[in-house]
Amino acid sequence: MARRRDSLSDVSATTALLTDHYELTMLQAALARGTGRRRAVFEVFARSLPHGRRYGVVAGTGRLLDALEAFSFDDATLEHLDSSGVVDRPTIEWLAGYRFSGDIWGYGEGEPYFPHSPLLIVEAPFAEAVLLETLTLSILNADSAVAAAASRMTAAARGRPCIEMGSRRTHEQAAVTAARAAYIGGFSSTSNLQAGRSYGIPTRGTSAHAFTLLHDTERDAFTAQVQSLGKGTTLLVDTYDVAEAVALAVDVAGPDLGAVRLDSGDLLAQAHEVRAQLDELGATSTKIVVTSDLDEHAIAALAAAPVDAYGVGTSLVTGSGSPTAGLVYKLVAREGPDGELTPVEKKSEDKPGVGGRKFPVRRRDRNGFAEAEVIAIDHRPESDADDRDLLLPLVRSGEVVGREPLDAAQERHRQGLAELPRVALQMSRGEPAIPTLYEEP
Amino acid sequence: MARRRDSLSDVSATTALLTDHYELTMLQAALARGTGRRRAVFEVFARSLPHGRRYGVVAGTGRLLDALEAFSFDDATLEHLDSSGVVDRPTIEWLAGYRFSGDIWGYGEGEPYFPHSPLLIVEAPFAEAVLLETLTLSILNADSAVAAAASRMTAAARGRPCIEMGSRRTHEQAAVTAARAAYIGGFSSTSNLQAGRSYGIPTRGTSAHAFTLLHDTERDAFTAQVQSLGKGTTLLVDTYDVAEAVALAVDVAGPDLGAVRLDSGDLLAQAHEVRAQLDELGATSTKIVVTSDLDEHAIAALAAAPVDAYGVGTSLVTGSGSPTAGLVYKLVAREGPDGELTPVEKKSEDKPGVGGRKFPVRRRDRNGFAEAEVIAIDHRPESDADDRDLLLPLVRSGEVVGREPLDAAQERHRQGLAELPRVALQMSRGEPAIPTLYEEP
Repeated sequence: MARRRDSLSDVSATTALLTDHYELTMLQAALARGTGRRRAVFEVFARSLPHGRRYGVVAGTGRLLDALEAFSFDDATLEHLDSSGVVDRPTIEWLAGYRFSGDIWGYGEGEPYFPHSPLLIVEAPFAEAVLLETLTLSILNADSAVAAAASRMTAAARGRPCIEMGSRRTHEQAAVTAARAAYIGGFSSTSNLQAGRSYGIPTRGTSAHAFTLLHDTERDAFTAQVQSLGKGTTLLVDTYDVAEAVALAVDVAGPDLGAVRLDSGDLLAQAHEVRAQLDELGATSTKIVVTSDLDEHAIAALAAAPVDAYGVGTSLVTGSGSPTAGLVYKLVAREGPDGELTPVEKKSEDKPGVGGRKFPVRRRDRNGFAEAEVIAIDHRPESDADDRDLLLPLVRSGEVVGREPLDAAQERHRQGLAELPRVALQMSRGEPAIPTLYEEP
Repeated sequence: MARRRDSLSDVSATTALLTDHYELTMLQAALARGTGRRRAVFEVFARSLPHGRRYGVVAGTGRLLDALEAFSFDDATLEHLDSSGVVDRPTIEWLAGYRFSGDIWGYGEGEPYFPHSPLLIVEAPFAEAVLLETLTLSILNADSAVAAAASRMTAAARGRPCIEMGSRRTHEQAAVTAARAAYIGGFSSTSNLQAGRSYGIPTRGTSAHAFTLLHDTERDAFTAQVQSLGKGTTLLVDTYDVAEAVALAVDVAGPDLGAVRLDSGDLLAQAHEVRAQLDELGATSTKIVVTSDLDEHAIAALAAAPVDAYGVGTSLVTGSGSPTAGLVYKLVAREGPDGELTPVEKKSEDKPGVGGRKFPVRRRDRNGFAEAEVIAIDHRPESDADDRDLLLPLVRSGEVVGREPLDAAQERHRQGLAELPRVALQMSRGEPAIPTLYEEP
């Protein structure tokens, strides 16, 4: 088969066109007017948490830093912009030299967040910063949506491992990054092989009904799998009759069989039945993995069942009802004609803004539990309280300084969640776990 | 800034790891057992339409053909699989020579579909076909979800152009392909520049609040935009006061101003007020573009308003409540020990299968309207009715034969939708527009 991968190569060469048309036309107009060089502060935040959630989870930061470094306009890209007439020649010449020279601060990846938490602050000349809006939001919105869902699922699983298995239910590249976001939210492994390769996340797999159906008998299928993959493998036992399959599985693999998987029916009842059967057969260490359209509520409902691991797909990669985090990227301050940084905000009724450079902290009570997200404007909050700074330096004068291993994000999430009041872990809809307060000036 | 794009290059080099761990371990076990070479038929279908929709829309087929051609195991990929211990050496050697040699048929891209419509049929040795499950589903599920939402939105817009503007609310690569799927579903343009480059979709843009806020006055901002981009530009008029902004816009650009955009508030009332004001100012040809969390219902509610174009974001790229199409890839037949192709199906209670190679047609009444999706098993339906064949050859003996221009998919969708009974266009929840019938054997 001949190769034809133009579009695949296109998208990988640079991230610069993963953006909206208007970012470039605004750039052109601002450059022409001389306002493009004005120093500007953009802020990423959510107006609200989706679906009555108690907290959000920052994810995508590490990916954003990679994407930022790949954000440049090569000759082919400039030629495309020229021939398609998106912007004029002076703008193309300016883009040819594009290099982000500003500063970026952000909440650490994995950090819980609340309405109006300033998750990312980009300070740079307007012309440089405006171009990053779409790419920044795409990455943070997609990843934070999955991480938030993952966090609730792992909380509901109470320490039992959760395996990300949703690749087939989302865009093929979003699948890779969903596995990454799920890991930040506490998942222990993924089925996605590229996520293993790109991010070092442990990969796991069981078996599909197709494998059983391929063989003439269920015994043939189990024998083939155990002989090739060893007794530690996970056998899928619901293709025909579960009880017969469990007996067969132990007969074929012996009592040291790694695990069985249930993928349909009443998982609660079946888990109890299968556990009893396995124990009776002496397979007391054989684990039970359940899958089949699980979400955080289904996982919570299985808390009392003898289940050893949850495989979660659709609901996880689609953000469990909230496939996007709803983050926005807004100009909150810019240099005025006097050279001073001036807060700005739009006045529209249903989407008002709060202008000014923000300094957020998480205020904690005497027991170390978070009690408020406190945001000061134009200065750090001044208080005797136990305040934890939330902004980390990510980019300084165009140089990425905020890289960290993925495990650090998972650990930050674990700690950040442990610090929240217990109401945060409730699955029901409600108010954010802590209020967001603006410090009085 | 130094370049560091390892993970970006990784994902673009080959599509072979955009898959699940278990596809490769099943392969290993089947190869070892000798069953991997059995001829197999896999089928892609939806058990149901999401959310009481009346029809689904096939999208992603063209992308799948590209991804299939890039599905091969290069040395670095094989080395990764070896060092991570996903599969054994014989399997790695087999993968090194992987080349899909089978046949694929599918519904044309853009075609409406219904529960159990066999959207894609993959016939190949099991070992070759099983590997394509995850990648195939990722692409078709993501793209079909967006195309279905787009189709309902363009139907609600009744001929007024719809502009795809959702890049920021979905994964940065999913944004590009969402624009493509939206185009198939009838959208006329996109804000995503990479979609313009990769797929030739017209790109459009207006202006953001940040641009107005950057300038000292709204007049400065409008003047900068009109001087640089011309009178045909679209001015955003809701940063401060809409009526003042509209007056200012016409004052700055003159009565030939291209368009104004409304992005907040009561769009219905505002559209009427702004239209009246524009007309009074002599700007009778100035168009009104509305945005702000539109979905198909909001678009339908604006049918009587003087709106000229809809910009749609979040709801479109997240499938308007159904971010994945829920398609599955199931083994429906495989070679038995006698060398004959044998139907197979699993028996589990809540997810039963229907075995056998399917031959679907769309049956039409005397007026040319579709009345049923008729599926025969193991032979073409035999009938005197006006039956339209639905499967097109996409891949023959490993060679892609089903490529077509994107406009052909958009046109097929238009025609396929026009053929459906009118109930298909109702926005309310309900049954599929036509029933799916299995032909009696």
